[in-house]
Amino acid sequence: MKILVINCGSSSLKYQLFDMEGEKVLAKGICESIATDMSHTKGSTFDGRSFDEYVDIPDHKVAFNIVKDALVSGDCKVIDSLSEIGAIGHRVVQGGDVFTESVLVDDSVLKAIDELSVLAPLHNPAHVIGIECCNEVFGDSVPQVAVFDNAFHSTMPETSYMFGIPYKYYEEDHIRRYGAHGTSHRFVAYRTAEIVGKDLKDIKLITCHLGNGCSITAIKDGKVLDTSMGLTPLDGFIMGTRCGAIDPSVVTYIMDKHNISPKEMDTIMNKQSGVLGISGVHSDDRAVRAAAEEGNKRAKLARDMQWYQIRKCIGSYVAAMDGVDVITFTGGIGENCTDLREDVLKNLSYLGIELNDEANAVRGEEIELTKPGCPVKAFCVPTNEELAIARDTKEIVEKL
Amino acid sequence: MKILVINCGSSSLKYQLFDMEGEKVLAKGICESIATDMSHTKGSTFDGRSFDEYVDIPDHKVAFNIVKDALVSGDCKVIDSLSEIGAIGHRVVQGGDVFTESVLVDDSVLKAIDELSVLAPLHNPAHVIGIECCNEVFGDSVPQVAVFDNAFHSTMPETSYMFGIPYKYYEEDHIRRYGAHGTSHRFVAYRTAEIVGKDLKDIKLITCHLGNGCSITAIKDGKVLDTSMGLTPLDGFIMGTRCGAIDPSVVTYIMDKHNISPKEMDTIMNKQSGVLGISGVHSDDRAVRAAAEEGNKRAKLARDMQWYQIRKCIGSYVAAMDGVDVITFTGGIGENCTDLREDVLKNLSYLGIELNDEANAVRGEEIELTKPGCPVKAFCVPTNEELAIARDTKEIVEKL
Repeated sequence: MKILVINCGSSSLKYQLFDMEGEKVLAKGICESIATDMSHTKGSTFDGRSFDEYVDIPDHKVAFNIVKDALVSGDCKVIDSLSEIGAIGHRVVQGGDVFTESVLVDDSVLKAIDELSVLAPLHNPAHVIGIECCNEVFGDSVPQVAVFDNAFHSTMPETSYMFGIPYKYYEEDHIRRYGAHGTSHRFVAYRTAEIVGKDLKDIKLITCHLGNGCSITAIKDGKVLDTSMGLTPLDGFIMGTRCGAIDPSVVTYIMDKHNISPKEMDTIMNKQSGVLGISGVHSDDRAVRAAAEEGNKRAKLARDMQWYQIRKCIGSYVAAMDGVDVITFTGGIGENCTDLREDVLKNLSYLGIELNDEANAVRGEEIELTKPGCPVKAFCVPTNEELAIARDTKEIVEKL
Repeated sequence: MKILVINCGSSSLKYQLFDMEGEKVLAKGICESIATDMSHTKGSTFDGRSFDEYVDIPDHKVAFNIVKDALVSGDCKVIDSLSEIGAIGHRVVQGGDVFTESVLVDDSVLKAIDELSVLAPLHNPAHVIGIECCNEVFGDSVPQVAVFDNAFHSTMPETSYMFGIPYKYYEEDHIRRYGAHGTSHRFVAYRTAEIVGKDLKDIKLITCHLGNGCSITAIKDGKVLDTSMGLTPLDGFIMGTRCGAIDPSVVTYIMDKHNISPKEMDTIMNKQSGVLGISGVHSDDRAVRAAAEEGNKRAKLARDMQWYQIRKCIGSYVAAMDGVDVITFTGGIGENCTDLREDVLKNLSYLGIELNDEANAVRGEEIELTKPGCPVKAFCVPTNEELAIARDTKEIVEKL
């Protein structure tokens, strides 16, 4: 079966076509800056063919037509006919507390995703448009599946997901911790269990998804016990451009002193804070690392703060689970930032962790980071959210 | 030497008179609701005499005169003459990053305390008034010492005290973590070191000051490494009426949706949140516990959340210090809430902690809570901020 995975944002459309025999990516690509005068598409195939061009993409329907054409025709064609696509899986950011697992899309599902837009105003409306356009372009005989970013976190107990604010905000406004990166945490969690040869239910696991956005999840009894992202992906610890959890009075203090609106403050905390805000250099760790190495103190501080806060978050989840068996790193910096992993793991020696320096020097590969025999093991496990979406989609459509 | 300790708020004045021979409290009392039509004073002496009456207290100067009269005259007199008072120690909430230890008050100190009012608008102005009135009433021959709530935290490294927001807010607005309850954390930290028979420099210690306001501090190498309260006492975990650190987007989301001003939001988070906000019952743990025992689910949730968040905070500081030797509980609920201590400590078994149930049943007393021989020990150590202020004051004036 071939499965098309779609990640549709408000001005972009990413896709990957999987052949589920061997879980091989046949083609992948992106349409960017949709509905702007910079609209652009690029893509590549399993055998090295590629395209990269500025074309007019006035809306998402045109974008889906570009994807369709790229798959079945032209220089980068990988299938003969659309009928080869057995199903389409969509990444959906916000499933609220409505969706606890991936589901086949029907009218009621589409309506529910739309209604959850209040909790993800930048993402869910784009997903709805994506699913509708996809239906028009690929035809309604192709089943579509929605895979929710936070479904894996839906098992959290209320002790973890409630914020300590007046209860009415939960009842009336649905304000609670939903988490994010769930598909990634789930993927690396099950893969980690496979690697250590145990059932996920039988290990206390902490998965660290560290990229430009970062979240850490505590998994016990095969279920998420807690996760660092909250109502939105702003919660947790400092990320590329986000501040993470801070003294809430800092928010009101700045707004009051500088007469800043909630939306402006949101932008400051989401786009101008974190590693970028502290370093003044960049949000990308490679640039910040280079600056730190050249003696930029704020660049070093930004990295130190992020590493320290990651360590504290891990420590808090060790306490939450009363222990830990395995800690897994994934995501752009989790897979590649070896000095981050070194700093975090060498300072968790109280858990009996001993870093294998040679293994830790490896970037972007599945590897055990701790020395053999450590009571708590650490791994790097590259994530693959698209593959997780494709697998969920396959599993659901095979049951139809 | 006799030392008068003053805690002056915007509408209240608390005092304790210590005889430093034996560190005995000779008299203590309060003037409340100053400048209202409910103004009121009460006090008691070491030998059981007391007073409790509504009197007109139009301002702080009148309040200090009431205190003076209560000490040297009338039924509750404990000294013959004001000249017996060797020095006066004042609690001051906010020392910013200006004061790293207690100091003798002079004009420049008073000016600096006043200038720090921007960071503690409810407290520092009252301290300035208190020191000035005190000077008028007790005379300028009595030395006055200022003991700052957050001076003990001034050793924190920037990795701990910086928030991950744009750097300019630190440079221009002095927004950083200052912490609170420092005098209490310091008092129980040194007492804990005494109990375990080690120098404070040689133990990794976590002190949990848990009252209506709560903060937890990590102490390593004899210095504060981190503390949970931040720019203000709102930071950390859920308290009686405060929410602690939350996803900052929750703050802006609620403000935006309900058109709430920063000051109103501050009130919601400081006065209507925490255990009160979740339980809907009360901020006082005794009332919430009673409700929980009668089956009130939100009351149980509020306590569970607070315990869970305390445990996570402790765990984060264990990771911050790469281990811990001793955990100390103090403050109203830290000293008396035995089921809180049980829940927290029994779920830290990964540290080798074993609770001594019999010891833990004791309330309000100095006691070792863990079984003998545990690699990580836990204690209850009642705090005494007034005595700490008196000791600092004595130490400073003896050097004059």
